[in-house]
Amino acid sequence: MIVSEKMYELGSKRSAIRELFEYGKKRAAEIGTENVYDFSLGNPTVPAPECVNETIRELTKELDSVHLHGYTSAQGDLETRQAVADYLNKTYQTAFKADNFYMTMGAAASLSLCFKALTTDSEDEFITIAPFFPEYQVFVQAAGAKLTIVPPDTKNFQIDFDALEARLNIHTKGVIINSPNNPSGAVYSEQTIQKLAELLTKKSKEFGTHIFIITDEPYREIVYDGVEVPYVTKYYNDTLVCYSYSKSLSLPGERIGFVLVPDEAYESREVYAAICGAGRALGYVCAPSLFQKMLVKCIGNTGDVNLYKKNRDLLYQGLTELGYECFKPDGAFYMFVKALEDDADAFCEKAKEEDLLLVSATDFGCPGFVRISYCVDEAMIQRSFKAFEKLKARY
Amino acid sequence: MIVSEKMYELGSKRSAIRELFEYGKKRAAEIGTENVYDFSLGNPTVPAPECVNETIRELTKELDSVHLHGYTSAQGDLETRQAVADYLNKTYQTAFKADNFYMTMGAAASLSLCFKALTTDSEDEFITIAPFFPEYQVFVQAAGAKLTIVPPDTKNFQIDFDALEARLNIHTKGVIINSPNNPSGAVYSEQTIQKLAELLTKKSKEFGTHIFIITDEPYREIVYDGVEVPYVTKYYNDTLVCYSYSKSLSLPGERIGFVLVPDEAYESREVYAAICGAGRALGYVCAPSLFQKMLVKCIGNTGDVNLYKKNRDLLYQGLTELGYECFKPDGAFYMFVKALEDDADAFCEKAKEEDLLLVSATDFGCPGFVRISYCVDEAMIQRSFKAFEKLKARY
Repeated sequence: MIVSEKMYELGSKRSAIRELFEYGKKRAAEIGTENVYDFSLGNPTVPAPECVNETIRELTKELDSVHLHGYTSAQGDLETRQAVADYLNKTYQTAFKADNFYMTMGAAASLSLCFKALTTDSEDEFITIAPFFPEYQVFVQAAGAKLTIVPPDTKNFQIDFDALEARLNIHTKGVIINSPNNPSGAVYSEQTIQKLAELLTKKSKEFGTHIFIITDEPYREIVYDGVEVPYVTKYYNDTLVCYSYSKSLSLPGERIGFVLVPDEAYESREVYAAICGAGRALGYVCAPSLFQKMLVKCIGNTGDVNLYKKNRDLLYQGLTELGYECFKPDGAFYMFVKALEDDADAFCEKAKEEDLLLVSATDFGCPGFVRISYCVDEAMIQRSFKAFEKLKARY
Repeated sequence: MIVSEKMYELGSKRSAIRELFEYGKKRAAEIGTENVYDFSLGNPTVPAPECVNETIRELTKELDSVHLHGYTSAQGDLETRQAVADYLNKTYQTAFKADNFYMTMGAAASLSLCFKALTTDSEDEFITIAPFFPEYQVFVQAAGAKLTIVPPDTKNFQIDFDALEARLNIHTKGVIINSPNNPSGAVYSEQTIQKLAELLTKKSKEFGTHIFIITDEPYREIVYDGVEVPYVTKYYNDTLVCYSYSKSLSLPGERIGFVLVPDEAYESREVYAAICGAGRALGYVCAPSLFQKMLVKCIGNTGDVNLYKKNRDLLYQGLTELGYECFKPDGAFYMFVKALEDDADAFCEKAKEEDLLLVSATDFGCPGFVRISYCVDEAMIQRSFKAFEKLKARY
């Protein structure tokens, strides 16, 4: 083959989720949309807050076009970075400055840049905690490092610290966490973050290294019942925050987010410079200018999270009543449910026969579970219960 | 250092052009903006065609927000890719289909993905023709390959084919061309493209390989006096087109472009898949959704190129009359001028003493020349001539 086999493989293998989604569309054409219960995709269904589209219209009217659509500096407009710092400082009582932020094209870019910046050797490792977002594997490998998986704590979906400690070693460059979590919906408690910070401090000292926490948190604002999501930089200095506005502002296709490198991090300015360098090396030039400028006005807004909460409550109650074992999510828009047989892939196949499209969590590193995405229409959830009932009856 | 030295170096070394631009701003504060003649940056100064901002406003009013700002497929919206195909087919009498296109975040991304897809071995080489855009070096190295430079044809700024032939070998994966050219402003003639196609066909056969042409063409529409820019796929099958709307629609900060993989290219579908895979590996998710949807309505529009032409004519005439040896550009918005001493860096330092900010072409692989960017205010060009005269008088 004339091309890289690795790249060919990545590009030609459709993700299982995408396959399922395409199947759902085909099936809907056959039997009617109302008879297919597609819980596969994690696309926000809440519209962007009105501020976003209003501000975009204002900017295109009021700002000089050359400035509005022109290159920003590679790290992002100073005004945007200042607005991000101000918002976080106000919300979390932190003391960030504009120069701690590098604006990116969303969390996938943020993560890729962090891995690329921190990888210095082919033996370097990043660790993540199952269940985890499978693209971490792709990004870490592309940076030339290795991803190690800590098996899930299937009771509370916090961190199995013994299992994590056993996997930390002198090659560990960072631990990737994702809270609120895709796919489990769990939020790491303050206690979990504190224990993680203690463990990494101890092991970094023991190895004579600095193990970073890379916190991937696009779902930070999607939480229910007043649950708090601790701001990780307050618990551990060597933290890189990878954020995206995809979910909070319902803008997943626009690609806007940031990497935050706090002053307290080890060799903070070197890390920041290496992230800038990685941006250059991967062909990122700047985060989209119009959306950077929009942020200055709209930061702190969110879509109506209450709609997700209604769906969560409806689905949790309905499935629990039917006898399913569900983990009640504190955040994100996914419910994690125990499959009715050990093989979750086989369970999902049977679900498909009832026109229920569920995602097996095998690829998320959590066999025996399925992910049910509830950023869907409430009426579809209502209609789906009879299919869930039929599925249950088969076991 | 905790981070990759290579990434640190890329991120901490400011480009010479950026340094010069920052110096210009400082100097303007000291002696007044009207007394500094900054010809350093290649930022479009023509506003985006009115269609762009109008369409953005309409889309935010009329389209469902979840759809407007949602994820598109990784390769881009079908409707956008079809619009791009239709436009090119109408303009160049080609026969592209939507599936030949992969929408990207601008030409830097397009190039990075092509290099990453085509690189299979650490001995792989890409060749470019001086003068060339220095970031090619960064992108090619990041993909794990080596960039080889063909010295410039300083008479016509076409291609020195003997020099190119001497550098082609069994490891050559592609030849990068950039016409209209940054920094020379030259446009490759049909004869040049034909000769290039013949040479690469001959050498590919000789080596038993397929040497691709990677044509980087963000300036395609910025041409003067009816000069034609041959569409390279019509002359050579193994061509990948890297395009950006940054210059034609004056949107450099918004990051929207494409890679075109024609059906006629060797293993076309494998190459396309590898480009999709590279997009995944580098953390690109999709090109910005709003700007993809804008393209469907605005494709084929351009900013007012005539403003650049007026500047070109004014500058060319003025400098020629003062005795400077200038290459008259057919496209882009740069004029290439012979330095008045062999060392163009030293010449630029003297120019700086006259508050003329010119970019030495040493980094572009063309010693002895300077680049004068004329996407500037016409009045500044007028005012600058007395400084050019004083500079000339020093030699």
